Amino acid sequence: MIKQEEFRISTAGRGTYDLSRQVQQAVMSSGISTGMCHLFIRHTSASLMICENADPAVMRDLETFMARQVPDGDPMFTHIAEGPDDMPAHVRSMLTQTDLNVPVSGGQCALGTWQGIYLWEHRTSPHNRKVMLTISGE
Amino acid sequence: MIKQEEFRISTAGRGTYDLSRQVQQAVMSSGISTGMCHLFIRHTSASLMICENADPAVMRDLETFMARQVPDGDPMFTHIAEGPDDMPAHVRSMLTQTDLNVPVSGGQCALGTWQGIYLWEHRTSPHNRKVMLTISGE
Amino acid sequence: MIKQEEFRISTAGRGTYDLSRQVQQAVMSSGISTGMCHLFIRHTSASLMICENADPAVMRDLETFMARQVPDGDPMFTHIAEGPDDMPAHVRSMLTQTDLNVPVSGGQCALGTWQGIYLWEHRTSPHNRKVMLTISGE
Repeated sequence: MIKQEEFRISTAGRGTYDLSRQVQQAVMSSGISTGMCHLFIRHTSASLMICENADPAVMRDLETFMARQVPDGDPMFTHIAEGPDDMPAHVRSMLTQTDLNVPVSGGQCALGTWQGIYLWEHRTSPHNRKVMLTISGE
Repeated sequence: MIKQEEFRISTAGRGTYDLSRQVQQAVMSSGISTGMCHLFIRHTSASLMICENADPAVMRDLETFMARQVPDGDPMFTHIAEGPDDMPAHVRSMLTQTDLNVPVSGGQCALGTWQGIYLWEHRTSPHNRKVMLTISGE
Repeated sequence: MIKQEEFRISTAGRGTYDLSRQVQQAVMSSGISTGMCHLFIRHTSASLMICENADPAVMRDLETFMARQVPDGDPMFTHIAEGPDDMPAHVRSMLTQTDLNVPVSGGQCALGTWQGIYLWEHRTSPHNRKVMLTISGE
Protein backbone atom coordinates (compact mmCIF):
# COMPACT_ATOMS: atom_id res chain seq x y z
CA MET A 1 0.00 0.00 0.00
CA ILE A 2 1.31 3.48 -0.88
CA LYS A 3 -0.09 6.83 0.23
CA GLN A 4 1.26 10.09 -1.08
CA GLU A 5 0.46 13.64 -0.07
CA GLU A 6 2.08 17.05 -0.17
CA PHE A 7 2.54 19.38 2.78
CA ARG A 8 2.85 23.12 2.21
CA ILE A 9 4.82 24.99 4.83
CA SER A 10 5.06 28.76 4.96
CA THR A 11 8.30 29.73 6.62
CA ALA A 12 9.06 33.05 8.27
CA GLY A 13 12.64 32.90 7.01
CA ARG A 14 15.75 31.15 8.28
CA GLY A 15 15.18 28.69 11.07
CA THR A 16 13.78 25.25 11.86
CA TYR A 17 10.14 24.17 11.71
CA ASP A 18 8.95 21.08 13.55
CA LEU A 19 7.02 18.72 11.25
CA SER A 20 6.88 15.77 13.67
CA ARG A 21 3.23 16.10 14.67
CA GLN A 22 2.00 16.58 11.08
CA VAL A 23 4.02 13.59 9.88
CA GLN A 24 2.84 11.35 12.72
CA GLN A 25 -0.76 12.29 11.98
CA ALA A 26 -0.36 11.46 8.29
CA VAL A 27 1.16 8.09 9.19
CA MET A 28 -1.60 7.30 11.67
CA SER A 29 -4.35 8.15 9.19
CA SER A 30 -2.65 6.19 6.37
CA GLY A 31 -3.68 2.86 7.85
CA ILE A 32 -0.15 1.55 7.31
CA SER A 33 1.19 -0.38 10.28
CA THR A 34 4.68 -1.51 9.21
CA GLY A 35 6.78 0.16 6.55
CA MET A 36 8.41 3.43 5.67
CA CYS A 37 7.58 7.12 5.83
CA HIS A 38 9.55 9.15 3.30
CA LEU A 39 9.85 12.93 3.22
CA PHE A 40 11.16 14.85 0.24
CA ILE A 41 11.61 18.60 0.08
CA ARG A 42 11.20 19.95 -3.44
CA HIS A 43 13.72 22.78 -3.03
CA THR A 44 17.47 23.31 -2.97
CA SER A 45 17.66 26.14 -0.45
CA ALA A 46 15.80 24.46 2.42
CA SER A 47 16.33 20.97 3.80
CA LEU A 48 15.18 18.27 6.19
CA MET A 49 16.73 17.13 9.43
CA ILE A 50 16.11 14.77 12.31
CA CYS A 51 17.36 16.44 15.46
CA GLU A 52 17.08 16.78 19.23
CA ASN A 53 13.58 17.97 20.12
CA ALA A 54 13.84 19.11 23.73
CA ASP A 55 16.20 22.07 24.16
CA PRO A 56 15.73 25.07 21.79
CA ALA A 57 19.40 25.91 22.37
CA VAL A 58 20.31 23.00 20.08
CA MET A 59 18.67 24.72 17.10
CA ARG A 60 20.29 28.04 17.94
CA ASP A 61 23.69 26.34 18.17
CA LEU A 62 23.15 24.61 14.81
CA GLU A 63 22.42 28.02 13.26
CA THR A 64 25.53 29.47 14.89
CA PHE A 65 27.62 26.61 13.55
CA MET A 66 26.27 26.98 10.03
CA ALA A 67 26.71 30.76 10.11
CA ARG A 68 30.39 30.25 10.91
CA GLN A 69 30.96 27.44 8.38
CA VAL A 70 28.98 28.98 5.53
CA PRO A 71 28.84 32.75 6.13
CA ASP A 72 26.30 34.82 4.22
CA GLY A 73 28.02 37.10 1.76
CA ASP A 74 31.27 35.12 1.72
CA PRO A 75 33.30 36.63 -1.15
CA MET A 76 34.22 33.17 -2.45
CA PHE A 77 30.66 32.74 -3.76
CA THR A 78 29.81 33.91 -7.28
CA HIS A 79 26.16 32.74 -7.40
CA ILE A 80 24.77 35.81 -5.66
CA ALA A 81 21.85 36.84 -7.87
CA GLU A 82 19.31 36.47 -5.06
CA GLY A 83 21.46 38.02 -2.38
CA PRO A 84 24.12 37.14 0.21
CA ASP A 85 22.15 34.14 1.59
CA ASP A 86 21.53 32.59 -1.87
CA MET A 87 24.60 30.38 -2.28
CA PRO A 88 24.96 29.68 1.48
CA ALA A 89 21.42 28.24 1.34
CA HIS A 90 22.51 25.77 -1.37
CA VAL A 91 25.62 24.81 0.59
CA ARG A 92 23.61 24.27 3.79
CA SER A 93 21.18 22.10 1.82
CA MET A 94 24.05 20.09 0.37
CA LEU A 95 25.44 19.47 3.89
CA THR A 96 22.06 18.31 5.25
CA GLN A 97 19.20 16.24 3.74
CA THR A 98 16.78 16.62 0.86
CA ASP A 99 15.05 13.38 1.79
CA LEU A 100 14.52 11.37 4.95
CA ASN A 101 13.17 7.90 5.62
CA VAL A 102 11.67 7.07 8.98
CA PRO A 103 10.53 3.50 9.70
CA VAL A 104 6.87 2.96 10.50
CA SER A 105 6.22 0.44 13.26
CA GLY A 106 2.95 -0.18 15.09
CA GLY A 107 1.27 2.47 12.92
CA GLN A 108 3.67 5.24 13.93
CA CYS A 109 7.01 6.73 12.96
CA ALA A 110 9.52 4.89 15.12
CA LEU A 111 11.34 8.02 16.23
CA GLY A 112 13.59 7.87 19.27
CA THR A 113 12.50 9.73 22.40
CA TRP A 114 14.58 12.80 21.60
CA GLN A 115 14.11 12.85 17.83
CA GLY A 116 12.02 15.38 15.95
CA ILE A 117 11.59 15.91 12.20
CA TYR A 118 12.41 19.43 11.06
CA LEU A 119 12.28 21.53 7.95
CA TRP A 120 15.29 23.84 7.93
CA GLU A 121 14.70 27.05 6.01
CA HIS A 122 18.05 28.43 4.86
CA ARG A 123 16.87 31.62 3.14
CA THR A 124 16.54 34.70 5.33
CA SER A 125 13.21 35.77 3.80
CA PRO A 126 9.88 33.89 4.13
CA HIS A 127 9.23 31.14 1.60
CA ASN A 128 6.51 28.66 0.70
CA ARG A 129 7.92 25.14 0.80
CA LYS A 130 6.55 21.85 -0.48
CA VAL A 131 7.31 18.56 1.23
CA MET A 132 6.12 15.36 -0.39
CA LEU A 133 5.23 12.51 1.95
CA THR A 134 5.20 8.92 0.73
CA ILE A 135 4.06 6.28 3.21
CA SER A 136 4.39 2.67 2.12
CA GLY A 137 4.02 -0.71 3.71
CA GLU A 138 1.43 -3.07 5.08
CA MET B 1 6.70 -4.08 -8.28
CA ILE B 2 10.47 -3.59 -8.10
CA LYS B 3 12.82 -2.80 -10.97
CA GLN B 4 16.56 -2.70 -10.51
CA GLU B 5 19.29 -1.65 -12.91
CA GLU B 6 22.84 -0.38 -12.81
CA PHE B 7 24.15 2.75 -14.49
CA ARG B 8 27.81 3.04 -15.38
CA ILE B 9 29.16 6.56 -15.51
CA SER B 10 32.64 7.42 -16.77
CA THR B 11 33.80 10.60 -15.09
CA ALA B 12 36.48 12.93 -16.38
CA GLY B 13 37.64 13.62 -12.81
CA ARG B 14 36.40 15.94 -10.10
CA GLY B 15 33.10 17.62 -10.83
CA THR B 16 29.37 17.04 -11.05
CA TYR B 17 27.53 14.94 -13.61
CA ASP B 18 23.81 15.40 -14.21
CA LEU B 19 21.91 12.09 -14.01
CA SER B 20 18.41 13.60 -14.03
CA ARG B 21 17.48 12.69 -17.59
CA GLN B 22 18.78 9.10 -17.32
CA VAL B 23 16.93 8.58 -14.05
CA GLN B 24 13.68 10.05 -15.36
CA GLN B 25 13.89 7.79 -18.41
CA ALA B 26 14.41 4.71 -16.25
CA VAL B 27 11.42 5.67 -14.10
CA MET B 28 9.23 6.28 -17.14
CA SER B 29 10.11 2.94 -18.71
CA SER B 30 9.64 1.06 -15.40
CA GLY B 31 5.86 1.26 -15.64
CA ILE B 32 5.72 2.35 -11.99
CA SER B 33 3.34 5.22 -11.39
CA THR B 34 3.50 5.87 -7.62
CA GLY B 35 6.40 4.91 -5.41
CA MET B 36 10.08 5.51 -4.89
CA CYS B 37 13.19 5.84 -7.01
CA HIS B 38 16.34 4.99 -5.07
CA LEU B 39 19.89 5.69 -6.20
CA PHE B 40 22.92 4.13 -4.59
CA ILE B 41 26.53 4.83 -5.54
CA ARG B 42 28.79 1.84 -4.92
CA HIS B 43 31.86 3.91 -4.04
CA THR B 44 33.27 5.90 -1.13
CA SER B 45 35.08 8.61 -3.07
CA ALA B 46 32.16 9.87 -5.18
CA SER B 47 28.67 10.72 -4.01
CA LEU B 48 25.14 11.73 -4.97
CA MET B 49 23.45 15.09 -4.57
CA ILE B 50 20.22 16.86 -5.41
CA CYS B 51 21.04 20.43 -6.29
CA GLU B 52 20.06 23.57 -8.19
CA ASN B 53 20.02 22.77 -11.90
CA ALA B 54 19.96 26.17 -13.61
CA ASP B 55 23.12 28.20 -12.93
CA PRO B 56 26.49 26.45 -13.44
CA ALA B 57 27.98 28.90 -10.95
CA VAL B 58 26.28 26.93 -8.16
CA MET B 59 28.39 23.84 -8.94
CA ARG B 60 31.56 25.92 -9.16
CA ASP B 61 30.79 27.51 -5.80
CA LEU B 62 30.15 24.10 -4.22
CA GLU B 63 33.58 22.99 -5.45
CA THR B 64 35.16 26.15 -4.08
CA PHE B 65 33.48 25.59 -0.72
CA MET B 66 34.63 21.96 -0.53
CA ALA B 67 38.17 22.88 -1.60
CA ARG B 68 38.34 25.29 1.35
CA GLN B 69 36.74 22.95 3.89
CA VAL B 70 38.58 19.80 2.84
CA PRO B 71 41.78 20.87 1.08
CA ASP B 72 43.67 18.32 -1.02
CA GLY B 73 46.98 17.45 0.60
CA ASP B 74 45.97 18.71 4.04
CA PRO B 75 48.77 17.52 6.37
CA MET B 76 46.24 16.29 8.94
CA PHE B 77 45.41 13.35 6.67
CA THR B 78 47.39 10.11 6.98
CA HIS B 79 45.46 8.00 4.43
CA ILE B 80 47.37 9.30 1.42
CA ALA B 81 48.30 6.13 -0.48
CA GLU B 82 46.42 7.22 -3.61
CA GLY B 83 47.50 10.84 -3.52
CA PRO B 84 46.52 14.21 -2.04
CA ASP B 85 42.85 13.89 -3.14
CA ASP B 86 42.40 10.40 -1.65
CA MET B 87 41.27 11.21 1.89
CA PRO B 88 39.51 14.46 0.90
CA ALA B 89 37.36 12.36 -1.45
CA HIS B 90 36.25 10.17 1.49
CA VAL B 91 35.50 13.24 3.63
CA ARG B 92 33.48 14.88 0.84
CA SER B 93 31.53 11.63 0.43
CA MET B 94 30.87 11.50 4.17
CA LEU B 95 29.52 15.08 4.09
CA THR B 96 27.20 14.36 1.14
CA GLN B 97 25.08 11.31 0.16
CA THR B 98 25.76 7.72 -0.83
CA ASP B 99 22.06 7.12 -1.44
CA LEU B 100 19.07 9.22 -2.45
CA ASN B 101 15.34 8.56 -2.55
CA VAL B 102 13.15 10.53 -4.89
CA PRO B 103 9.37 10.01 -4.80
CA VAL B 104 7.71 8.78 -7.99
CA SER B 105 4.37 10.40 -8.73
CA GLY B 106 2.42 10.23 -11.97
CA GLY B 107 5.11 7.98 -13.46
CA GLN B 108 7.91 10.50 -12.92
CA CYS B 109 10.42 11.58 -10.29
CA ALA B 110 8.65 14.36 -8.40
CA LEU B 111 11.62 16.73 -8.51
CA GLY B 112 11.04 20.40 -7.83
CA THR B 113 11.45 22.84 -10.70
CA TRP B 114 15.04 23.69 -9.76
CA GLN B 115 16.19 20.26 -8.65
CA GLY B 116 18.59 18.04 -10.55
CA ILE B 117 20.16 14.70 -9.56
CA TYR B 118 23.96 14.72 -9.70
CA LEU B 119 26.84 12.36 -9.31
CA TRP B 120 29.71 14.20 -7.66
CA GLU B 121 33.12 12.81 -8.54
CA HIS B 122 35.57 13.72 -5.78
CA ARG B 123 38.75 12.20 -7.23
CA THR B 124 40.78 14.40 -9.54
CA SER B 125 41.42 11.64 -12.09
CA PRO B 126 38.79 9.96 -14.31
CA HIS B 127 36.91 7.01 -12.77
CA ASN B 128 34.26 4.49 -13.77
CA ARG B 129 31.36 4.71 -11.34
CA LYS B 130 28.43 2.38 -10.73
CA VAL B 131 25.07 3.68 -9.57
CA MET B 132 22.36 1.17 -8.71
CA LEU B 133 18.79 2.24 -9.36
CA THR B 134 15.88 0.58 -7.55
CA ILE B 135 12.41 1.71 -8.55
CA SER B 136 9.53 0.35 -6.48
CA GLY B 137 5.82 0.98 -6.19
CA GLU B 138 2.60 0.46 -8.03
CA MET C 1 7.26 -8.49 2.22
CA ILE C 2 8.59 -6.38 5.10
CA LYS C 3 10.81 -7.53 7.96
CA GLN C 4 11.68 -5.26 10.84
CA GLU C 5 14.08 -5.77 13.71
CA GLU C 6 16.08 -3.70 16.15
CA PHE C 7 19.81 -3.99 16.78
CA ARG C 8 21.25 -2.87 20.09
CA ILE C 9 24.84 -1.73 19.98
CA SER C 10 26.89 -0.95 23.07
CA THR C 11 29.55 1.56 22.16
CA ALA C 12 32.75 2.18 24.07
CA GLY C 13 32.54 5.90 23.31
CA ARG C 14 33.48 8.00 20.31
CA GLY C 15 34.45 6.02 17.23
CA THR C 16 33.06 3.90 14.42
CA TYR C 17 31.50 0.45 14.73
CA ASP C 18 31.21 -1.83 11.71
CA LEU C 19 27.65 -3.15 11.28
CA SER C 20 28.16 -4.65 7.81
CA ARG C 21 28.24 -8.30 8.83
CA GLN C 22 25.20 -8.01 11.14
CA VAL C 23 23.23 -6.23 8.44
CA GLN C 24 24.19 -8.73 5.73
CA GLN C 25 23.14 -11.59 8.00
CA ALA C 26 19.76 -9.98 8.68
CA VAL C 27 19.22 -9.49 4.95
CA MET C 28 20.21 -13.08 4.14
CA SER C 29 17.87 -14.53 6.77
CA SER C 30 14.99 -12.24 5.71
CA GLY C 31 14.31 -14.29 2.59
CA ILE C 32 14.10 -11.06 0.56
CA SER C 33 15.93 -11.27 -2.73
CA THR C 34 15.35 -7.87 -4.38
CA GLY C 35 14.48 -4.69 -2.55
CA MET C 36 15.78 -2.34 0.08
CA CYS C 37 17.53 -2.54 3.42
CA HIS C 38 16.92 0.53 5.56
CA LEU C 39 18.79 1.46 8.72
CA PHE C 40 17.58 4.07 11.17
CA ILE C 41 19.42 5.17 14.30
CA ARG C 42 17.04 6.32 17.04
CA HIS C 43 19.41 8.93 18.48
CA THR C 44 20.66 12.43 17.70
CA SER C 45 24.22 12.13 19.02
CA ALA C 46 25.30 9.10 16.98
CA SER C 47 24.86 8.50 13.28
CA LEU C 48 25.22 6.11 10.35
CA MET C 49 27.74 6.16 7.54
CA ILE C 50 28.82 4.14 4.54
CA CYS C 51 32.57 4.37 4.27
CA GLU C 52 35.80 2.78 3.08
CA ASN C 53 36.27 -0.54 4.87
CA ALA C 54 39.90 -1.45 4.27
CA ASP C 55 42.32 1.04 5.85
CA PRO C 56 41.72 1.97 9.53
CA ALA C 57 43.54 5.26 8.84
CA VAL C 58 40.40 6.46 7.01
CA MET C 59 38.36 6.33 10.23
CA ARG C 60 41.12 8.05 12.19
CA ASP C 61 41.30 10.79 9.57
CA LEU C 62 37.52 11.25 9.65
CA GLU C 63 37.73 11.73 13.43
CA THR C 64 40.58 14.21 13.00
CA PHE C 65 38.57 16.14 10.44
CA MET C 66 35.47 16.27 12.66
CA ALA C 67 37.54 17.26 15.70
CA ARG C 68 38.84 20.24 13.74
CA GLN C 69 35.49 21.24 12.21
CA VAL C 70 33.39 20.73 15.34
CA PRO C 71 35.73 21.02 18.35
CA ASP C 72 34.54 19.74 21.74
CA GLY C 73 34.04 22.60 24.13
CA ASP C 74 33.83 25.26 21.42
CA PRO C 75 32.69 28.44 23.23
CA MET C 76 30.13 29.16 20.49
CA PHE C 77 27.95 26.33 21.83
CA THR C 78 25.38 27.05 24.55
CA HIS C 79 23.79 23.57 24.78
CA ILE C 80 26.43 22.16 27.13
CA ALA C 81 24.37 20.47 29.88
CA GLU C 82 25.90 17.07 29.20
CA GLY C 83 29.45 18.28 28.70
CA PRO C 84 31.81 19.60 26.04
CA ASP C 85 30.98 16.80 23.56
CA ASP C 86 27.18 17.25 23.85
CA MET C 87 26.51 19.85 21.15
CA PRO C 88 29.37 18.68 18.89
CA ALA C 89 27.67 15.26 18.84
CA HIS C 90 24.47 16.85 17.52
CA VAL C 91 26.40 18.80 14.87
CA ARG C 92 28.30 15.69 13.75
CA SER C 93 24.97 13.85 13.49
CA MET C 94 23.48 16.68 11.46
CA LEU C 95 26.44 16.54 9.04
CA THR C 96 26.18 12.77 8.57
CA GLN C 97 23.18 10.36 8.35
CA THR C 98 20.37 9.27 10.64
CA ASP C 99 19.10 6.81 8.04
CA LEU C 100 20.61 4.83 5.19
CA ASN C 101 19.12 2.79 2.37
CA VAL C 102 21.13 0.02 0.77
CA PRO C 103 19.68 -1.86 -2.21
CA VAL C 104 19.18 -5.60 -1.81
CA SER C 105 20.08 -7.63 -4.89
CA GLY C 106 20.47 -11.41 -5.11
CA GLY C 107 19.56 -11.70 -1.43
CA GLN C 108 22.38 -9.43 -0.25
CA CYS C 109 23.13 -5.77 0.33
CA ALA C 110 24.64 -4.56 -2.93
CA LEU C 111 27.58 -2.80 -1.29
CA GLY C 112 30.57 -1.90 -3.42
CA THR C 113 33.81 -3.75 -2.77
CA TRP C 114 35.19 -1.03 -0.49
CA GLN C 115 31.97 -0.06 1.27
CA GLY C 116 31.15 -0.86 4.88
CA ILE C 117 28.17 0.22 7.00
CA TYR C 118 29.16 1.97 10.22
CA LEU C 119 27.58 3.35 13.33
CA TRP C 120 29.47 6.49 14.37
CA GLU C 121 29.31 7.19 18.09
CA HIS C 122 29.86 10.90 18.65
CA ARG C 123 29.72 11.01 22.47
CA THR C 124 32.98 10.39 24.31
CA SER C 125 31.42 8.08 26.91
CA PRO C 126 29.95 4.59 26.23
CA HIS C 127 26.31 4.49 25.13
CA ASN C 128 23.66 1.92 24.26
CA ARG C 129 22.35 2.60 20.76
CA LYS C 130 19.32 1.29 18.93
CA VAL C 131 19.30 0.83 15.16
CA MET C 132 16.06 -0.21 13.50
CA LEU C 133 16.38 -2.35 10.39
CA THR C 134 13.57 -2.53 7.84
CA ILE C 135 14.07 -4.92 4.93
CA SER C 136 11.45 -4.81 2.20
CA GLY C 137 11.00 -6.30 -1.24
CA GLU C 138 10.31 -9.57 -2.96
